Amino acid sequence: MRQKSFRNGQNIDVHAATDRSLLYGDGVFTTIAINNQKPLLLDEHINRLYRDAKKIAIPSVSKDIILKRLTDALEQWFESSSSDNAIARITISRSSGGRGYQCLDAEPVYWINLSPWPTHIEPLREEGVSLRMCSQLLSNNPSLAGIKHCNRLEQVLARDEWRDETIHEGLMADMDGNIIEGTMSNFFIVKEGVISTPELSHSGVDGIMRNTVINAAKLQNLDIKIRTISKSDILSADAIFISNSIIEIWPVNRFDGNQYSKLAIITDLQSKLRSMIHG
Amino acid sequence: MRQKSFRNGQNIDVHAATDRSLLYGDGVFTTIAINNQKPLLLDEHINRLYRDAKKIAIPSVSKDIILKRLTDALEQWFESSSSDNAIARITISRSSGGRGYQCLDAEPVYWINLSPWPTHIEPLREEGVSLRMCSQLLSNNPSLAGIKHCNRLEQVLARDEWRDETIHEGLMADMDGNIIEGTMSNFFIVKEGVISTPELSHSGVDGIMRNTVINAAKLQNLDIKIRTISKSDILSADAIFISNSIIEIWPVNRFDGNQYSKLAIITDLQSKLRSMIHG
Repeated sequence: MRQKSFRNGQNIDVHAATDRSLLYGDGVFTTIAINNQKPLLLDEHINRLYRDAKKIAIPSVSKDIILKRLTDALEQWFESSSSDNAIARITISRSSGGRGYQCLDAEPVYWINLSPWPTHIEPLREEGVSLRMCSQLLSNNPSLAGIKHCNRLEQVLARDEWRDETIHEGLMADMDGNIIEGTMSNFFIVKEGVISTPELSHSGVDGIMRNTVINAAKLQNLDIKIRTISKSDILSADAIFISNSIIEIWPVNRFDGNQYSKLAIITDLQSKLRSMIHG
Repeated sequence: MRQKSFRNGQNIDVHAATDRSLLYGDGVFTTIAINNQKPLLLDEHINRLYRDAKKIAIPSVSKDIILKRLTDALEQWFESSSSDNAIARITISRSSGGRGYQCLDAEPVYWINLSPWPTHIEPLREEGVSLRMCSQLLSNNPSLAGIKHCNRLEQVLARDEWRDETIHEGLMADMDGNIIEGTMSNFFIVKEGVISTPELSHSGVDGIMRNTVINAAKLQNLDIKIRTISKSDILSADAIFISNSIIEIWPVNRFDGNQYSKLAIITDLQSKLRSMIHG
């Protein structure tokens, strides 16, 4: 008898119930937009997923197998879906089984979760969104900064601070008061034609769409800086926008009582981005 | 069609696969020693579990139901176990289902994992253990400090730093260089008859056995202080010991090249502790 597991009283599959993602958040993940039944920026997502796994020493899982399983899962999903769009999350967990933090002979497992595409995504790319400031702070820890790992309690607690549906995202500061990211997005400010986004050496997630935006800006010869950003930098900005792999770019109309316009520079970036993503 | 989930290519139960502990480490847990088929310090474990859940706003799950299920699970376990001891972990996860950090209408789920009792626990209470210093640092974040939550990547990475089986535990410092805890234990130092253990307002886990040790020391009229502890405090200590709910107290023989003796004060504390735990 090795282990037994019970979920809400039901005796369940020990391998699912002792997954280290479940026990310790001991895994990495990525969230991919599926458009016209095709994953967008798939190489970038898979490369970051494997880079993140390597950073926290999760042994390799065959990329070919994961990609094949993603294809199979999507095929199955779209057989009975009324929409050709969806969201896929791929998680790699260090291992299943065993007790305690140590994990000898890790045999990583992966999960693919598929969800319907939300209808509010596209309109907000035009209409823009409202942001608030969260009181929940992000920890500083260079060893985990940038990694999209499964230790996401800070984001969960930050997102739990508001229920007002007219507010779409909250920004989070680190322990030094620098503003790092949104709960589910990276952010950019525009000031006198210069675009800036926070540097992520001490906390934050190194977003795929953040990097795609940075590349899009460079391709358009825009001045883009990666630096520390304070709340007053945001309040004095000419424009703000947020990004992630699902929303692409949402321009910001309001933050903390301030109003912002969607400048032409943002519309241009959105077009560039779309051509880069959709080819 | 709400969601679909696949684990290593297998289409699996969507409710287990979208559990928020799995996705975000969005849960709390406690690890209980089962001795002679009975959970030790059960009230203390259940009270901390519920206090921790409340701290991160996980709605209540019926205590009666969890306790009943634990009893049922243990009964089932001991029907086919050759030992009367075991380890139980109870996890409460915020909810199952949904996508994204926001969790409206959370319906918490709980898991009970049972594992065999390891044979090396008791001898090391006499023999003592060796400690090392980990290079992995603990984040500071008062909002999560003390809570036994499921975001445990820092502990996993710290525990992964050594494979030498003669070293039993590693101590971890926070970002300010204060030594906070072991990867799976709290620690105490003894200097000139005074016992000290780190204060945990910025990081660390508020261990059940740590509190039981503190109470045991007070009952014995020992001088016990909760304060910041540096590495040099440890190196100049007369004795060190570590605690958790499974090991109770392990005296430390070696840390970072230094040798320590098991002082009588530790043996006395172990006896007091055993009478408090086992009645």
